This record gives sequence, C-alpha cells and structure tokens, in this order.
Amino acid sequence: MAVYTDVRDDQLQAFLQAYAIGDLHSFKGIAEGVENSNFMISTDGGTFFLTLYEKRVDPADLPFFIGLMKHLSERGINCPQPIPMRSGEYLGTLAERPAAIISFLDGVSVRMPTADHCKQLGQALAAMHLAGEGFPLQRKNALSVSGWRPLAEKCLDRAGEVESGLDSLLLGELEAMEAGWPDGLPAGIIHADLFPDNVFFLKDELTGLIDFYFACNDLLAYDIAVCLNAWCFESDWSFNVTKARALLQGYEKTRPLEASELNALPVLARGSALRFLLTRLYDWLNVPEGALVVPKDPMEYVQKLRFHRGVKSAAAYGMDMAGAARA
Amino acid sequence: MAVYTDVRDDQLQAFLQAYAIGDLHSFKGIAEGVENSNFMISTDGGTFFLTLYEKRVDPADLPFFIGLMKHLSERGINCPQPIPMRSGEYLGTLAERPAAIISFLDGVSVRMPTADHCKQLGQALAAMHLAGEGFPLQRKNALSVSGWRPLAEKCLDRAGEVESGLDSLLLGELEAMEAGWPDGLPAGIIHADLFPDNVFFLKDELTGLIDFYFACNDLLAYDIAVCLNAWCFESDWSFNVTKARALLQGYEKTRPLEASELNALPVLARGSALRFLLTRLYDWLNVPEGALVVPKDPMEYVQKLRFHRGVKSAAAYGMDMAGAARA
Repeated sequence: MAVYTDVRDDQLQAFLQAYAIGDLHSFKGIAEGVENSNFMISTDGGTFFLTLYEKRVDPADLPFFIGLMKHLSERGINCPQPIPMRSGEYLGTLAERPAAIISFLDGVSVRMPTADHCKQLGQALAAMHLAGEGFPLQRKNALSVSGWRPLAEKCLDRAGEVESGLDSLLLGELEAMEAGWPDGLPAGIIHADLFPDNVFFLKDELTGLIDFYFACNDLLAYDIAVCLNAWCFESDWSFNVTKARALLQGYEKTRPLEASELNALPVLARGSALRFLLTRLYDWLNVPEGALVVPKDPMEYVQKLRFHRGVKSAAAYGMDMAGAARA
Repeated sequence: MAVYTDVRDDQLQAFLQAYAIGDLHSFKGIAEGVENSNFMISTDGGTFFLTLYEKRVDPADLPFFIGLMKHLSERGINCPQPIPMRSGEYLGTLAERPAAIISFLDGVSVRMPTADHCKQLGQALAAMHLAGEGFPLQRKNALSVSGWRPLAEKCLDRAGEVESGLDSLLLGELEAMEAGWPDGLPAGIIHADLFPDNVFFLKDELTGLIDFYFACNDLLAYDIAVCLNAWCFESDWSFNVTKARALLQGYEKTRPLEASELNALPVLARGSALRFLLTRLYDWLNVPEGALVVPKDPMEYVQKLRFHRGVKSAAAYGMDMAGAARA
C-alpha cells in the first residue's frame, strides 16, 4: 500500500484541464498498489482512478498496459477503461511522472475465496484470454523462466536467512524448470498477477478484473497456474482441491484446455510458485530504507512450491484425467 | 498516511449489517491520517468514510469526538456527520478496533493557501467556535502547556541531533510558556489541529472542516494561534503577514476578539509552535520500526518558534492595534 508521490491540489487541477470530465470534487490517496501511486478522484463526471507510474514501471510498457485495458474493455471484459484526454491521448504527466486516469470499478476483493469464487474466476480468466486475441502490442514476460536465474542469483547467498537449505532448493528448481519448461502450448495475453486482490465481486458475483501492470504475452495455462497458487491454498498454506477443480471447470466452460496444457499444469504451477517465491525473497532480503510496504513472507511460496513438486498430474488439481485423452 | 489495520471483506460486510446504508459497492484504504486507519466505502446509500481507531486514540475520548461532530454538523458546520447504526449507536467494533462511519465530505485541501483561503478559514474557525457552545462533553487538551514538559523530557537528551543547542532553546521556552501562559481568556471547544490538510475547498470556496481527533476544551484564541502557524508561513518558512491579517479579519467578521485575546496572541502562537515542535521532535527521534509514515521535519517549527519569539504584539500578525483599545 502506498502513495509514493505527493500530488498538490493545484497540480491536479491543472492536469485535469486536459480531460473532459469536469471539475474536481475530491481526491484521496489510496493505500494499495505496490508499484505505483494511486488516487481516487471524483469529478462532475463521476469517480475515477488516477495512477502515477513510479520508477519500477518502464514507461516504454505503458502503451501496452493502457492499450490492453482499452482493448479488453471494448471486448466486454469488465476491467478499468482508460479515459482519453481531449487530445485523444491516454498518457499525461503529473508531478513529473507519467500518469493516466482510468474508470473506477465497483466491487470488493475477497480475502477468503470460496470454490464458487474460484469457478467464476476461472470463467473470467478464460474470457480475458479469448478477448486478448488480436491485441497488436507485445510484451515479453520478464518474470518467466528465463528471468528466474538472474533474480535467484541476487538472493542465493542470503536465502539461508529465510530457511536453511533454501539456496539448494532454489538451484534445483531452477535447473528443473529450465530443463522441463513446456513449449508449444497456446499462448496469448496473460494477466500474470491475478491474485484475489485484483478481482472484484459484488454479492458473490464477479464484477471485474484490475491491475494489468504485469500483463504480457505468455502461455495461457501459466495464468491458470498463477491462479492455482493464489486462490486455491488455504491460509494455513494447505491446498484445497475443491477450489482448484472449480477454477479449472470454470475456465473450461469458456475455453477448454488442450491435453498438452493439462499435462503441463504441474510444472507450470511449480514454476509459478518459484516465480513468486523469488520476487518475495528478493523483496524480503532487500527492504529499502523508509519502505512503506511490509514485504510478504517468502515461506508461503516455499510451501506451495513443495506441494507442486509432489504433484504427478493435473488430477491433483481436481481434473478428471480422462480429459487428458483429448487432443 | 496509513492503513494500520487490514479489514477483510467479510468482516466489513458483517459490520455493515448494523447500519441502514445498504449494500457495499467498494472499499478502499485511504493513505491519510496518522493516528487511525481510514477507508472510503461506497454503498447503496452513497459514499462514506470508515475509521478504525488505533491505539494512539483513547477509546474513552471517542464519545467526545463523535458527539462533537454530531453537535457541530447539527449546528450548520460542514464537518463529517456520524452515521448511526440501526440501534442508534455510533460506535461499533471492526477488526477488534472501535470503528465509526461518518459522512464523506467533498472538497480538496489546498497545499499553498492564499490570503483569501486564510480569510475563509478564519471565518469558519470562528463559526466553529460559536457552534461549539453548549456541547456538554469535556476533553482536556493533553497537548497544552502542562503537557509540554513531560513530552520535552523524553526528547531533551537527543534534541541536539536535530540542531545543536535545541535542548537549551526548549528548556528556555518551557520556562517562558509556563510562566507567561495566559488565563482568563474565552474558552470553549477548539479544533486544535486545523492544518490545511483538514480544511476542504471547492473552486476556492471553503466547503468543510475535518479530523476532529485533537478537539478539546481550551482557549479559543489558541486555535487561531495554531492556524497562524499552519497557514501563514510560506514553504521557505517565512511569515506572510497578509495571510495572517486575512485570517484574523475573517475570524473577527464572525467572532470579534477581545483585547486580552489579541494581546495574548504572540505568546499563544509561540506556545503553539512549541507544541508542534515537541510532537514532531518526539516522532522524529522515535520512528517505530516498520513505520509507514515519514516523520515531518521538526526544524520547520524551530523556525516558526523563533519568529514568534521576536514578535512584540499582534500588530506583527497584521492586526490594527488600535483594536487593542477594545474591552
């Protein structure tokens, strides 16, 4: 949670001149978002979300993120819609940062998702994957398998501070993932960070997806693997196969998985656990001075990684493996 | 800026059952408020502000704060209005903290107030002082003159880390204030923390006052002294007498000052500078581990204190001292 950049009232008023959303009624810094500074603003035109992109976001990626939200929302995905300036542009400058205004989505994140939430998540994820087709911009997943070793190398010598022997676990996993990472699976636009924080519900109905700032081109099934890790473990880090089955069944209602995707799910889930383990470990070992954010415990993902290491097939995720007979 | 307590969606939904404001549409942690955790919530009934009172607030004070907001808003002061539960009560419990819902006020704080803003502030402050009459609850100002020495004693041995000789400055000021603090001036309900953050404007018209969590019974003119310090210095810490005159003239349009109040203004302003110097110094020297808030520079108030030490009469604040002839 954070507001990294202080925005003065006069700066904001001047910035809003470029938009056709009327006069400002209020603005409040929002205590969420680890990468950027976020504000809720209300104007004659309604309630909006204002984001200032901070240094962890590469400005060269912004047209991808903004363009993707526009593409998806035009195709019926309930996600934030970028608000154009009078000039037609979507990106401005505020307090010396790139800044954009997007629509505000109603909804509340669930902290303890039920199987039904997971099912709806699966459906929404599949719909997003289909809607992403035809989006013309490309963005590499910097946090996929080829990015993990360089990240691990920054942590290995101190990994033992978190758990004794964690360094050898990481080295073994890197080798296994680099050797066994699937290719040839269906690829496209993935969200890559679809944690419960980033999914809104109202009265237990899914109402929207937010935070596309890790979105990229990668294997579609990898997005499912991220969700298995983020949605289907309990708070004691035990795996809930009912939720996993619901997630996968929900997904398949909209986009049936190929056999190759199902077969790859255990390695993708293991890789995704490694990805979040590595970023959390890095953040844990490198808390910047004056940090506004308390880093998340990397051990959660050590535990999840160990679970997936023991998985032999997608049956462990509740899939009827008769399905593996499909093309 | 802070959200100290994490509120789960299910906890909030359960909490809202006690209110008649309809179903939840969204909730967002707000990056403001140093003492409490604040959330903006929207429901069928509109937009509201939810506050969880953290440990720096004494629960015994909450009926005073809530009651005061109710009292003032019923008397036409545009301040947050506590929203009652169906039971008629105003204070509930959420995430193991006392919690209240108050109305959301439109408006934006100005970072660089003009003389006209100061004039409106003066008027609103006087109106609040008059509206406070008849409020039956009492709360002592723990941060008035008798509270300063105990606070200073926690900082004196390390005050030199901020500026060499600051310890003797503080000791001298404590003696001077304890000896020269006025009594017999008109007293009543004061806000005690009416910084620009806590005053909203829309299109340069003052629309409301917020954050009554330092409000107490004290000398009314002390509230003016706080505002002189908070509103009438420039960002280079130089004093702007035009703004001070506007503030005082605005105040007197609604509540003319007595001669004794005008005469006491320099010592009250000096005392108020000492009060903010001491709390900032304490916070500066005692940043808690994992702090979410960057402490404010105590030197700003050292500078302001020095200014008021050089002031001989309220003429330095732009007052026509012929006025001192009034009763």
